[in-house]
Amino acid sequence: MWKKPTFLIDIKKVMQNIERMQQKALKSGVEFRPHFKTHQNLDIAKLFREKGIHKITVSSVSMARFFAQVGWNDITIAFPVNLLEIREIDQLASEIDLNLLVESAHSAETLANKMKSAAGIFIKIDSGYHRTGLQPGELIEITKTIQLIETSGKLVFKGFLTHAGHTYSASSLKEIELIYQSAAEQLNRLKIHFTNNFPDLILSYGDTPSCSIVQNLSEVDEIRPGNFVYFDVMQLQIGSCTIDEIACTVACPVVAVNKERNEVVIYGGAVHLSKEFIIDKYNQKVYGLVAEISNIGRSETIEGAYVKSLSQEHGVVHIPEAFKHRMQAGNIIGIIPVHSCLTANLLKEDTVLLY
Amino acid sequence: MWKKPTFLIDIKKVMQNIERMQQKALKSGVEFRPHFKTHQNLDIAKLFREKGIHKITVSSVSMARFFAQVGWNDITIAFPVNLLEIREIDQLASEIDLNLLVESAHSAETLANKMKSAAGIFIKIDSGYHRTGLQPGELIEITKTIQLIETSGKLVFKGFLTHAGHTYSASSLKEIELIYQSAAEQLNRLKIHFTNNFPDLILSYGDTPSCSIVQNLSEVDEIRPGNFVYFDVMQLQIGSCTIDEIACTVACPVVAVNKERNEVVIYGGAVHLSKEFIIDKYNQKVYGLVAEISNIGRSETIEGAYVKSLSQEHGVVHIPEAFKHRMQAGNIIGIIPVHSCLTANLLKEDTVLLY
Repeated sequence: MWKKPTFLIDIKKVMQNIERMQQKALKSGVEFRPHFKTHQNLDIAKLFREKGIHKITVSSVSMARFFAQVGWNDITIAFPVNLLEIREIDQLASEIDLNLLVESAHSAETLANKMKSAAGIFIKIDSGYHRTGLQPGELIEITKTIQLIETSGKLVFKGFLTHAGHTYSASSLKEIELIYQSAAEQLNRLKIHFTNNFPDLILSYGDTPSCSIVQNLSEVDEIRPGNFVYFDVMQLQIGSCTIDEIACTVACPVVAVNKERNEVVIYGGAVHLSKEFIIDKYNQKVYGLVAEISNIGRSETIEGAYVKSLSQEHGVVHIPEAFKHRMQAGNIIGIIPVHSCLTANLLKEDTVLLY
Repeated sequence: MWKKPTFLIDIKKVMQNIERMQQKALKSGVEFRPHFKTHQNLDIAKLFREKGIHKITVSSVSMARFFAQVGWNDITIAFPVNLLEIREIDQLASEIDLNLLVESAHSAETLANKMKSAAGIFIKIDSGYHRTGLQPGELIEITKTIQLIETSGKLVFKGFLTHAGHTYSASSLKEIELIYQSAAEQLNRLKIHFTNNFPDLILSYGDTPSCSIVQNLSEVDEIRPGNFVYFDVMQLQIGSCTIDEIACTVACPVVAVNKERNEVVIYGGAVHLSKEFIIDKYNQKVYGLVAEISNIGRSETIEGAYVKSLSQEHGVVHIPEAFKHRMQAGNIIGIIPVHSCLTANLLKEDTVLLY
């Protein structure tokens, strides 16, 4: 079994998660360009490939290089272009179909001056998350940016891209639908404005909560969810998935049991699970849910059990009265992570696929 | 320069931090067994070696193996023994002087039955942190555990070890001194109780806040601080260090500037800095402080600037009015991490030593 914290992937669930999202994209008539930052895993990438998916999203130049090296040749780096890596970007653009993201005339101009290879350019639009992007009303800056792209000779304006990350703090499914509607409306207003000159421009939309919860995504042209491949406790809380759809569990050795405090201590800390937490309905910080595991997968979650704190290598798990007498050092328990993207990144070298 | 998030180590500061702690150990007449989990870096390990340090602490079997492979041969794994790795532990114990940590008779008994090689055993005592350890008053359980160790024939009872992790939530330097005093008293009571049978037993004490703040540590026999080698924003807030003593900075490319919101967005997110934060005096979450950097090191921190949020690869930095006009995409800024142990772990492959 697993002697150290190990990221276990339930492949059947992964396949179902992929199929469900692919079907939704198909029904909505939108391109499905999944974000690979969540898994960063070549075996998971192969599952997408087997489903006929050839276009992907990543969030760094290194990640684009990683997937390009094994044959992915249509990649969007959905991150404001890092001008310090322009040489690496240019090289990559000479090898594959590469799309970049700009959110200022300055970045567009620098790319226009320095890129030797052809690349597609999306303009990042801030549809309400307020992290990055031009405001949809900044038509002068947007027009100037498009002109800089188009007059470069090498760069091709592809369309508008948004990441509605504020769905993560939405308090209801209804609010998430409204966020999607609002973003789609803002993007479509831009599309109408620029459609005469760019009839093929693409509206690209991100985030797993929207793409999971909204039934019909046909108002955009492309979706880029990533987290849905595994889901996690955060998505469960948001309402993007059911507990059964969460495809990942971290196997953690139990190293200590404290029956007085109703706690077990696991080998499994911040360097395995990340320090991401949710606040649950009892106003408690929760760093993970808990299940029993075997080599075929995990049980239902253990009612009332949760990871209550993490240090570098230790996790402290609250366990309910009824369960604690079965626990001793040398056991293994399963932790369902709060944020699977961060956990997958931390446990890259310790990932096991369960078929 | 640094095109991607890069962990920069100021070696002069590291040397000063090591020397200061070594001097304090020397003056206090205690063994200095630094914790290497913070850096996990062979070059930093060499600096300790050059100072004559030969005994170290780590927090996992893998980390012990990592350092044993390059010649460190006196290692304490200060983590409740992971019984699932007993084979790896036994192998390691056959090669080096290895100390393990137990906190239950069950773990001691399992080790006694299964270990073929000699190993030193510390009993973990809970001096008030309430994460792991036997209570200092549990004399029956402690005695039973020592007997199991001693009758094994292979294992040697070494002494009592505590980690006063509750210093991290102390609200004053005085409180940290009191935590140390209380822990030292609890350990010494145990020492007196067991000294007839074990005149050489060692009292081993951890945590950077205590070891940095308390001037005289002579009431214990060994100290195991780790974080002091780099320090970080959390230690600064606790009062363990000055801002100038913090030896690490993460170089992060600026990828977007939003002058209206007084924000810059950096390539530098949760997968580089970790999601650890402090709450500052304005009740704001702070994920890092900010400085200018060059290839010789960093500037003073920029007053009023701080990392206000992190996603997987993005960081959003609040910048003061006076500073924002100097910022544009393509710049590099320095982020002083909140928790250097986690940041060092995440940026293992992207670490640069500045001499």
